[in-house]
Amino acid sequence: MDDRFPLAGGSSAGKIKPVAVGPVVFGGPDVPVIAGPCSVETEEILLQTARAAREAGASLLRGGAFKPRSSPHTFRGLGEEGLKLLALAREETGLPVVTEVLSPRDVELVARYADMLQIGSRNMQNFPLLQEAGRSGKPVLLKRGFANTIEEWIWAAEYVLAEGGQVVLCERGIRTFERATRNTLDLSAIPVIHSWTHLPVCVDPSHGVGHSPWIPAMARAAVAAGADGLMLEVHPQPEKAWSDGRQSLDLESFRRLMASLPPVAEAIGRRMAVAALVPPGSSGQ
Amino acid sequence: MDDRFPLAGGSSAGKIKPVAVGPVVFGGPDVPVIAGPCSVETEEILLQTARAAREAGASLLRGGAFKPRSSPHTFRGLGEEGLKLLALAREETGLPVVTEVLSPRDVELVARYADMLQIGSRNMQNFPLLQEAGRSGKPVLLKRGFANTIEEWIWAAEYVLAEGGQVVLCERGIRTFERATRNTLDLSAIPVIHSWTHLPVCVDPSHGVGHSPWIPAMARAAVAAGADGLMLEVHPQPEKAWSDGRQSLDLESFRRLMASLPPVAEAIGRRMAVAALVPPGSSGQ
Amino acid sequence: MDDRFPLAGGSSAGKIKPVAVGPVVFGGPDVPVIAGPCSVETEEILLQTARAAREAGASLLRGGAFKPRSSPHTFRGLGEEGLKLLALAREETGLPVVTEVLSPRDVELVARYADMLQIGSRNMQNFPLLQEAGRSGKPVLLKRGFANTIEEWIWAAEYVLAEGGQVVLCERGIRTFERATRNTLDLSAIPVIHSWTHLPVCVDPSHGVGHSPWIPAMARAAVAAGADGLMLEVHPQPEKAWSDGRQSLDLESFRRLMASLPPVAEAIGRRMAVAALVPPGSSGQ
Amino acid sequence: MDDRFPLAGGSSAGKIKPVAVGPVVFGGPDVPVIAGPCSVETEEILLQTARAAREAGASLLRGGAFKPRSSPHTFRGLGEEGLKLLALAREETGLPVVTEVLSPRDVELVARYADMLQIGSRNMQNFPLLQEAGRSGKPVLLKRGFANTIEEWIWAAEYVLAEGGQVVLCERGIRTFERATRNTLDLSAIPVIHSWTHLPVCVDPSHGVGHSPWIPAMARAAVAAGADGLMLEVHPQPEKAWSDGRQSLDLESFRRLMASLPPVAEAIGRRMAVAALVPPGSSGQ
Repeated sequence: MDDRFPLAGGSSAGKIKPVAVGPVVFGGPDVPVIAGPCSVETEEILLQTARAAREAGASLLRGGAFKPRSSPHTFRGLGEEGLKLLALAREETGLPVVTEVLSPRDVELVARYADMLQIGSRNMQNFPLLQEAGRSGKPVLLKRGFANTIEEWIWAAEYVLAEGGQVVLCERGIRTFERATRNTLDLSAIPVIHSWTHLPVCVDPSHGVGHSPWIPAMARAAVAAGADGLMLEVHPQPEKAWSDGRQSLDLESFRRLMASLPPVAEAIGRRMAVAALVPPGSSGQ
Repeated sequence: MDDRFPLAGGSSAGKIKPVAVGPVVFGGPDVPVIAGPCSVETEEILLQTARAAREAGASLLRGGAFKPRSSPHTFRGLGEEGLKLLALAREETGLPVVTEVLSPRDVELVARYADMLQIGSRNMQNFPLLQEAGRSGKPVLLKRGFANTIEEWIWAAEYVLAEGGQVVLCERGIRTFERATRNTLDLSAIPVIHSWTHLPVCVDPSHGVGHSPWIPAMARAAVAAGADGLMLEVHPQPEKAWSDGRQSLDLESFRRLMASLPPVAEAIGRRMAVAALVPPGSSGQ
Repeated sequence: MDDRFPLAGGSSAGKIKPVAVGPVVFGGPDVPVIAGPCSVETEEILLQTARAAREAGASLLRGGAFKPRSSPHTFRGLGEEGLKLLALAREETGLPVVTEVLSPRDVELVARYADMLQIGSRNMQNFPLLQEAGRSGKPVLLKRGFANTIEEWIWAAEYVLAEGGQVVLCERGIRTFERATRNTLDLSAIPVIHSWTHLPVCVDPSHGVGHSPWIPAMARAAVAAGADGLMLEVHPQPEKAWSDGRQSLDLESFRRLMASLPPVAEAIGRRMAVAALVPPGSSGQ
Repeated sequence: MDDRFPLAGGSSAGKIKPVAVGPVVFGGPDVPVIAGPCSVETEEILLQTARAAREAGASLLRGGAFKPRSSPHTFRGLGEEGLKLLALAREETGLPVVTEVLSPRDVELVARYADMLQIGSRNMQNFPLLQEAGRSGKPVLLKRGFANTIEEWIWAAEYVLAEGGQVVLCERGIRTFERATRNTLDLSAIPVIHSWTHLPVCVDPSHGVGHSPWIPAMARAAVAAGADGLMLEVHPQPEKAWSDGRQSLDLESFRRLMASLPPVAEAIGRRMAVAALVPPGSSGQ
C-alpha cells in the first residue's frame, strides 16, 4: 500500500495492471519493444526502418512528428505530414504507433493517427497536457522528466489517471553532473515504481546513454531489472539522421541487440514479446 | 557577441535592453520589486498584502490564479476568479500585476487581466506556451527551469522573442543534492546572462531558499550581484497560507528587508525603484 | 584507444585485463561476488555471515574495520580488532578478505590482514592514499566517488597504477536530486569503463539503492550490463546492524538473490564464479 | 539551538565566534580578503602578486604548494620549496599565509610554515586529515566538498573542533548540471551556516564561477549575503598561470574589485578589513 498515490498506488501498489495498446500488452509476462527513428523524416526512411524493426521483433513503431527542441532555430518535425507517414507505416507493417504530443491543442489531432500518445520529458509536469491526454481515450506513454523525482513522476501519472486515462511510464535518464553519457539512466526506478504503484514501466536507453555502442548493455540491464518494455531509437543511417543520430542504432546493431534479449528475459522468468500485429486496414483506434 | 542566441545575444549581448511593464522598467538604473502572495486566496488577504507591498516600496504585485502543483490532489488556484481579484488589487493600489499562465489556451484570458505574463519553472520548455505568450502583446517573466542550464533558458527566451515578445528572465533556484534549502539559488546566472544577452534578469529568493529567515540575505546578495529586479513572496500570515507559507515573508519582515535594500543598490551604482503607479481606472494595457 | 588515460586506457582500452585476488579473478569469464556486513561487529555475527555467504556462493568476504562516518559522533569501526576478526573469518571459511583503508598511515596495517584494499567513495580523490595503496602489493578495489565523473574515477585509478598497483573499479551510485533511493546507481558506467579502459568494474547495489527490497533487481541488472563482480551487504539481522541496516540483505534474501544470478550471467555468455577458496592456514597473500 | 552539531551548533548557534589568524580576524565586523595565485610557481611571481594583493587591501596570502590534481600526469605543486617561498612572501609583505595540506603526514610540515591550514574540497571528508589538522594548533580553513551538503560540511568541522581546533568554513561552489560556470556558487550556505552554527564562513568565487569576468559580481554578492571573508585567485599573468588561469583575476581587475567592495560591506553594516600585517621577522607561529 502506498497512500501517497490514490490512483497509481494505494492497495493496488505492488501488482502490475497491464495496459494494452492494440494487440500489444505492457505489464504482462511478455516484454514489448518500441523502435523507430527519433524524427519522422521521409516516407522511404520510415518504411525501411519500420519493416526492419518488425522483422527484428519490435512490437510498436515510434517516430516524432512534433519535436520539442531546446532552440527555436532547429528542425521541429513534420507535424501532421509526419503523422500521416506514421499511419502509412502502420498500414504497411501492422505495428501500432507511438508518437509525441506537445500541446493540449494537438491532442485530438495526434490521437486521430496514433495508437499511444507519448508525453515527453520536458512536458512531464505540463498539467493541462496530461489532463487532455488522459481524456483522449488513448493510452499514454509518460516519460520521466529529466530532473523529476520518481514521486513527482507518479503524481504526473495521477493527472492522467484522474481523467480516466491509462499510463505506461518510461524511464529515459536523469540530468546529473556526469558528462560521459547524455543522461544517467536510473534503472533503480523500475523496482521503486513496481513497489509503489501498479503501473508498467519501460526504459529508453537511447536517450539514457546517448551513445549507440553503450545502448545494448543498458537494454539488457533494463530487462534484467524487470522493465515492462523497451524504447529504442533505430535509423538506417544514424550518421545522416536529422536529430539524435549519435544515439540511434543502425539496423544491424538493432538486430543483434534484439537477438540477445530473449535469454535475459527468460533468466528472470519473462519473455520478449513476439510482435502481435495490427491487421492491415485497421484504423489504429 | 554571442552568436548562439540570434535574438537575445548576437551583437547586442552585454548591453541590457530595458523592458517596460506599464510605468515599471526592468533593466534600467532602477531595480523594481515584485511582491505578493504565492496564491491568490481571498480578496481581503490579497488587498491587505498589496497595500502593504506598495507602502514598503514594491513596484508590482504578484499572485497565482493558476497554480501548477505536482499532485492533482492539492489546491490549484482560483482561476479566472483569482485574475479578477488581481485586477481589483491593481485598481486599489496602482500596482501592475504579474501572474502565471499554464496553458496556451489560457494566454488570451490571462493577458486580459495581467500586465505581465509569468511562465513558471516547470513550463520553461513548454514551447507552444512560450510562443503563444510571445504573441500576446504582454511582456513575459520567464522563470528558469529548475533543472535547466542557462543556455537552455536563453533558448527558451528566443522562442518568445521570435514571436515579437519581450522577456525578463527570473532566476529561482535549481535542483541539486542540497536539502537545507528548497533549491540552490544560482546568483552566478546574473553575470552570465548579462554577458551573453541583452535581457534583464530578476531573482526570486523565496523559491530559491524556501525558508523565510534566509531570504533577506539572498535578496541583498541578488541586488549586489546586479539583478534587475526581485520577486518576493509576502503574506500577512505565512503560517496560514494555502501554499508555500514556509517561504513567505510576513509584512513586517518584508518592510525591514525593503528598508535594507537601497544602500546595497547604491553600493553598485543603482537605485531601488520607487513605485511608479498605474493610475486608478487604467486597464492594465 | 583512449589516450586520456595512459595506464588504464591507451591501446589496451576495450580489452579487460583480469585482476586476481588470491584464487578469485575479476575481469575473466566468471563473475565473483563480495559479500559481508557493512561493519565488522562481533566475532559471532561475522563468522555466521561469512559462512552463509560462502554457502550461498560468495567468493570474497567484506566488512569494515575502519568506517568513514560523516559525523564524528557515531561508531567508527573496531580498528585493528576488526581486522583480526576478518582474518579469523578467512581462516574459517577460506574466503579472501576485502576491507577499507582510510589513511595512508594505515595502509601497511590493513595490508597485513586483507587480501584486497578498498578505497571508499569519500576517498576516491585522496591522492596520497591512492599512491600508498598502489605501493602496498595488494590489489585495490576503488569505489567511485559519489559525485565524481567516470573520467575522474579513471584518473584516480591512474594514481594507483602509476605506483605499480592493480585496480578493480566499483560503481556504488552517485549523488543526484532523487530521494527515493540513497544514491542513483549508474550502471551505464559499466559499458563506458569497458570501452575506455582495460579495468574490471564491479557494482555495489547495496549503497546504490540503499533499500534492501530493491537490491536484487539491481544486482541482476548489473550482471546483465556486464559487471565483472558484485559487492553486497549481508547481515543476519539487518534491523540490528550497527550501520546501514536498511540496505543489508538478510541471509535468506541473499541466498535467493544468489540463486537467481546464474541464468542472468549465462544469458550474456558469462558464469557466476564458484567460490575458489583460500586454503585454511594461508596468509592472505 | 541546533542540536545536530554539539560543537559547532548547540546553544551557540546563531552567534558567530570569531577566529583569529595572527592579526586577522574572521567573524568580527571586518571582512578580510585572502588573495594569491592558485599555485606557488616562482619567487618572482609570488612576491609580485603578494605585494599587489597587500596594496589592494588583501589581509592574507594564499598559494598552493601541494596541489590536488585529478590526473597524476599534471603539475602537483612545488612541495616544501613552495612553502619556503610562501614564508618568504610573508616576511616581505607581512601577510599571514594560508595553504593547503593534502595528507595527515604533511600536517606538521605545512603547519611549520603556514598561519592557517587549508583543507580542500576533495578532502572535506578525509577524516584522518581533519583530525590531524585539528591537533596542529593552527586554524583550519575548511572548504566545502564540491558535492557535500551543508550538514555534512558542518559535521566535517566537528571533526576538527573535537580535536581542539578552530574552523573557518569556505564555500567554493558545488557540482551541478550547469556548465556555463565551473561550479554553482551556493551563497545561500552563508545564512544557513550562520543560523545553524557559530562558525565564520568565507566565499571563494574564483572556483565558484571559474571564469574571471564573472567573479567581481559574485564577490560583491558574497559580501552582501554576509560572508565573513573572501578568497580570490590573483595572478600577474593569468593566461600563463600553471593552473586555473581562466579563473584568476589579473592585478588591475583585482584592484578594481577591491575598490568596489567597501560600500557593499557598509550597506550591511560591516567594513572590509584593512590589512593588519604580521611584523617582518615574525615566525608565522
